[in-house]
Formats: sequence, structure tokens, C-alpha cells
Amino acid sequence: MKVHNFSAGPGILPKEVLLKASEACINFNNSNLSLLEVSHRGKDVIEVFSNAEHLVKSLLNIGDEYAVIFLQGGASFQFAMVPHNFLNKKAAYVNTGVWASKAIKEAKYYGETLVLASSEADNFTHIPKNYIIPEDVDYFHFTSNNTIYGTQTRDFPNSPVPLFCDMSSDIFSHRFDASKFDLIYAGVQKNMGPAGATMVILKKDLLNKIQRKMPSMLNYQIHVEGESMYNTPPVFAVYVSMLTLDWLKRNGGIEWAENRNRAKADLFYSELDRNSLFKGTVTKEDRSWMNANFIMNDPAKEDAFKKVLKEANISGLNGHRSVGGFRASMYNAMDLDSVQVLVNVMQEFEKTNG
Amino acid sequence: MKVHNFSAGPGILPKEVLLKASEACINFNNSNLSLLEVSHRGKDVIEVFSNAEHLVKSLLNIGDEYAVIFLQGGASFQFAMVPHNFLNKKAAYVNTGVWASKAIKEAKYYGETLVLASSEADNFTHIPKNYIIPEDVDYFHFTSNNTIYGTQTRDFPNSPVPLFCDMSSDIFSHRFDASKFDLIYAGVQKNMGPAGATMVILKKDLLNKIQRKMPSMLNYQIHVEGESMYNTPPVFAVYVSMLTLDWLKRNGGIEWAENRNRAKADLFYSELDRNSLFKGTVTKEDRSWMNANFIMNDPAKEDAFKKVLKEANISGLNGHRSVGGFRASMYNAMDLDSVQVLVNVMQEFEKTNG
Repeated sequence: MKVHNFSAGPGILPKEVLLKASEACINFNNSNLSLLEVSHRGKDVIEVFSNAEHLVKSLLNIGDEYAVIFLQGGASFQFAMVPHNFLNKKAAYVNTGVWASKAIKEAKYYGETLVLASSEADNFTHIPKNYIIPEDVDYFHFTSNNTIYGTQTRDFPNSPVPLFCDMSSDIFSHRFDASKFDLIYAGVQKNMGPAGATMVILKKDLLNKIQRKMPSMLNYQIHVEGESMYNTPPVFAVYVSMLTLDWLKRNGGIEWAENRNRAKADLFYSELDRNSLFKGTVTKEDRSWMNANFIMNDPAKEDAFKKVLKEANISGLNGHRSVGGFRASMYNAMDLDSVQVLVNVMQEFEKTNG
Repeated sequence: MKVHNFSAGPGILPKEVLLKASEACINFNNSNLSLLEVSHRGKDVIEVFSNAEHLVKSLLNIGDEYAVIFLQGGASFQFAMVPHNFLNKKAAYVNTGVWASKAIKEAKYYGETLVLASSEADNFTHIPKNYIIPEDVDYFHFTSNNTIYGTQTRDFPNSPVPLFCDMSSDIFSHRFDASKFDLIYAGVQKNMGPAGATMVILKKDLLNKIQRKMPSMLNYQIHVEGESMYNTPPVFAVYVSMLTLDWLKRNGGIEWAENRNRAKADLFYSELDRNSLFKGTVTKEDRSWMNANFIMNDPAKEDAFKKVLKEANISGLNGHRSVGGFRASMYNAMDLDSVQVLVNVMQEFEKTNG
């Protein structure tokens, strides 16, 4: 029985990737050993990391001026690692939600942190846009997709200073000019793999700007030199990510994902705007293709709606515990069919409960 | 065809654990969803973490005065996190190998770091013993098992100050009085699970000693309060660890593991001492039950020996790239049968090549 997995993350992964991951737990590359119990220094595991790096570069159309590494600790650890390495004098951030706020909080520990704009007063229901990035900061940092609220920036700013972005929840979901960025990071547990690895893409010449002394595990230079293996890396999470990147590449890459994601978002948001029982919670122009947040006009009907969702095998549609309501997360691996099932349920529910 | 997995880590895991892990990649707890694509805030995943914590406490016979948390970054991240939290004035370390040296290096970044004793001048072939732990340090830190050299401390010192230990490569392998310790950490990829999670056991009253301000991800207090879920945790690695802990408990706990490990070590080291072609590289009294390092008296015979190892389906017996030779790692999940296969191969090789 197929479950339609709208979980906000860790989120849906391609079925074929899960099957290969399952097989590797018992027999990795026909070694009769599990991927979970072999050395990360073995030829086959090193090849997994190398393939993952090359797939990222190929999908994003970037060259050897960038390093691609896989670390641990999620985006939350990057919130500290980024300023630890690069905030020498001051840095600029935009506050678009809880994750951006956390990144700002950690940066303040390291130095002056300008918040150029914030939509906090409006409960983060839109993306602030009219701000100017100053030229005297070490970098400008923003969050491309805000999972908790369902807002997304798909047109990226030009920046007079190094441009940094947390793309944890929408990396590889639409085409963009990656060469504009000096540093991109993403916890892999939305569009790439399971929880437990963080991808960091950074321009190699950025490493020359590191001035602060710091412990090895916080230092990007050391991880780049170690090719993600300064210490024992999260092998399985990187393996699953590599499989997902390979799946994406074989299906047509980011253009294919973008077309699919636009179609899913169009299908869902059209129904949301048409249906008299539901309404969206964010400014239309800032709606995320990854996470669609909505509420019911009559909260008393929520339990009945949850019941029909369950009957239709729709999973993970609850809103984040901090905001309530509903949230349909439609990451790369989700088929249009699953969104159609959700739309059908919403239409049927309107007929019987409208 | 069974492969005898002597890998130093990530290392051998119980077959039944690997089968369950493989199943969970496709269908976790009969949800028809993969463990890799569900929220860590779900009831079933929270139960995994709770079970893991309770199994650790039960196996080590410790109570609620201790917190058990699962973090990311391996022991290498703990090398920094420990002094970041607890080195206020000065700390004392013993240098028993590469990992201890790295822990010392990171501690120096935070404050005065006394090295009470070191066997570095003797290539770490023994464990230094005649040192006195000073009473005016914030803590005393040592490494219980040194994977690269094959030495181990199984009788733990009494300490007038908080006692900290890196038990990455021998946790749960023999009985010891855990209540002597204030903080124990272990990358899970030897005796517990795959790479990607680190277990930390710490006395809760230790948290009162944290004085330094620091980013959230470095702060034990925050991870203890968040019950390992301050941010998205490495769910799969913790799940596999929980399964291994459960396997250990059902089989008889640490006493069972100790008996097995002693028998394996006795079998292997007896042959090593008897066989005219091989010799051990460390002081006998400091030999590790987890990692047995040895060399051939005639290095010209190494290639021929490697060939017969391969024919016998023996894997992972190469020494660490920094020291060469051979290393037989015999973690908890290894059966005596596999050690017997290795011993048979050594005896046969002596007959034909002696």
C-alpha cells in the first residue's frame, strides 16, 4: 500500500534509492559485507564520495574552483562554522524564519552581525526584499527556503560581497546560477538523503580568508584537504545522497526537477486558492515549491480532515509544532500523482463538508 | 559466502542487526515508509532514541544521575567539545596514541593542557602507568583503547578530579565501573553501529561547571535539554546502535561480551606467540582485546600471507596506513569461529612457508 509522504524532513526519497540503500546494508557492491561495517578508507567507499562530489558539480554546473565536502552536524552546525571561519569583522544576514534567526544568533557570538531585513513582525509570512547589501561586510547570508512557514526565494540577489546561502530544504529543486555563490550548505535530509550529513559547496579561494585559529573539526580548510575524510565520515548518509544525485542526473537533472516541482506546486496551490475550506498562510509571490503551508477556515473541521487524510494514506501533513495548521512538503522525490491524491481528497472533503 | 570481517572500524556488526537495518530502509515499524524519510519527531523515532538511552544505562548499570545523548562529528568533535565545555583553567591528559594526541592538540586551543605521561618515544607500544593525576585540574582525560597500535587500558585509574574517557573502540567490550566516570564518549562505529553518531554519557551535575559562552551545537547543556534532538539527529546511525545494544542485552550483556572477547583474544594471542612467522608489536600486558597488531618476522612473506587471507575470505586485516603490518580487530560482534579461521590460516601458512 503506497503511502504519500508529505513529511517536511527528513523527507521522501526515491523508491529505487531506498531499495539500493537497503541492499547495501547487507551486501555493498557485491562484497558480501555491509556498507555499515567496512572501512571508509576502502576503494569502494572513497569512490562513493568522489561520485557524490562529481554529481554535485555536474548538476550545478560548477568546476574545480569549488570544493564539495560532506560534514556532520546539519545546517545547525554550519550556523556556527560559517562565522567561525569567515566572520572576521562583521557580516550581514536577512531574517526569514526560525532557521535564519538561529544562524543570526550563532553569528553574533563571533562578531558584529547586521540584520538587513526581517519579516519576523509579520510571522515570517513573506520574504523581505528591499534591502541593500553593504560593501564592508565579510559576507551576506540568507536562507533560500523556509520550511516552517512555506516561503522561498528562487531569484537570488547579486551581492558585492561573498554570497552565502543555507539551501537545506530546496537544493537541486530548481535551476539557479550557482557560480554567484561563494558558499552553499544543505543538510541532506530533504532533497538528497537521510539525516546525518551536511553538504558544503565553497569557492576554494574563500579559504584564504580564514583568520581565526580554531579546533580542527570547525575548520573548512582541514575538511577540504581531507576530502571529507579528515575523520570518519557519515558513510551511509553520503552513500544514499550519492544515489539520489545519480537518480536526479539520470532523470534529467535540475531542469527536470524544476519542471516537476513547478507542476506539483501549480496543482496544489490552484486547488488551495479554489477550495472554499482552505487558505494559504503566506504572500502568494513568496510561496515555496517545497513546503505549502495552509490552514482551514473553520478549525473545527481539522480533525475530520485529518481522518480522511489518514484513510487516503497521506502522511506527514501536519504543520510544524511551532505554527500548527497543515504543511504539504513536496520535495524532489515526490511524484505529481501524490499531489493529485491530496488535491482529490481536498475536493472530496469540500463536497462532503463544505 | 561468509566474509570474516576484521576491519578496524567502521567494523563488524551482528548479522541480525544488519538484516533489521536493511528492512527499516524500506519499511520501518510496518509504516510502509522508510526510516530514512520520516520525521525524527515522530513517535516511533523518539522511541528509538529512548530505547537506546535506556539500553546504555541498563548495560552500564548507571542511573538518572547520568545523561546519555547521541551527537554527530565522531570522537574528533568531542576532542574539541570536551575542553570547550569543561577546560576552564587547566586539564590533564595521557598520550597513548594518535587519537589521544589529537585530543591533546584540541584541548591546548582552550587552555593549559598538562600531558602527565606519554609513550610516544616508544611508538606507543605500551600504556604509560606511573603518573599522578593532579588535584588542581578541571578533569583528567584518557583513551581506553588505541586502535592504531593495539593497546588497551582495562583497569581504570581512580581520579581526584572528574574522569573523562574516549572509549570509541572498546565501549561495551568488558565490565567496568562506569560510576567512576564523569564523561565517556564513543564514536559508535566500532562496537555499536555505522559511522555517523557519537554517544556521550555524562554526569548531569557536570553541566553546572560550564562557564564559557559558546555556539549551541558545541554546548552539552543544549543537547541534554534537547534529548539528542536539539537539531535533526543522525536517526539511522542511532537506530542501528539501538539494535546492537538490544542484541547485546539479549545475549547476556557486557559480561557475555567480556567472556567472548577474552576467549577470542586468548585464542589469537596464543597463536601469535606460538607461531614462528609472526610477532606482536606491543607490550604483552597492554595488549588490546579489540585490536591485535602484529608483523611478520620476514616482511618478504607478507604478500603471500595476504594472498591466503584473501582465499580464506578474511577481510580488513591490514594495519593502519600510518604503521603498516597487520591488525586483527575483533569487536563485540565477531564470533570466535572467525578468529579460529584466522588462526588456522596462520598455522597452515607456517607449515607451508615456515
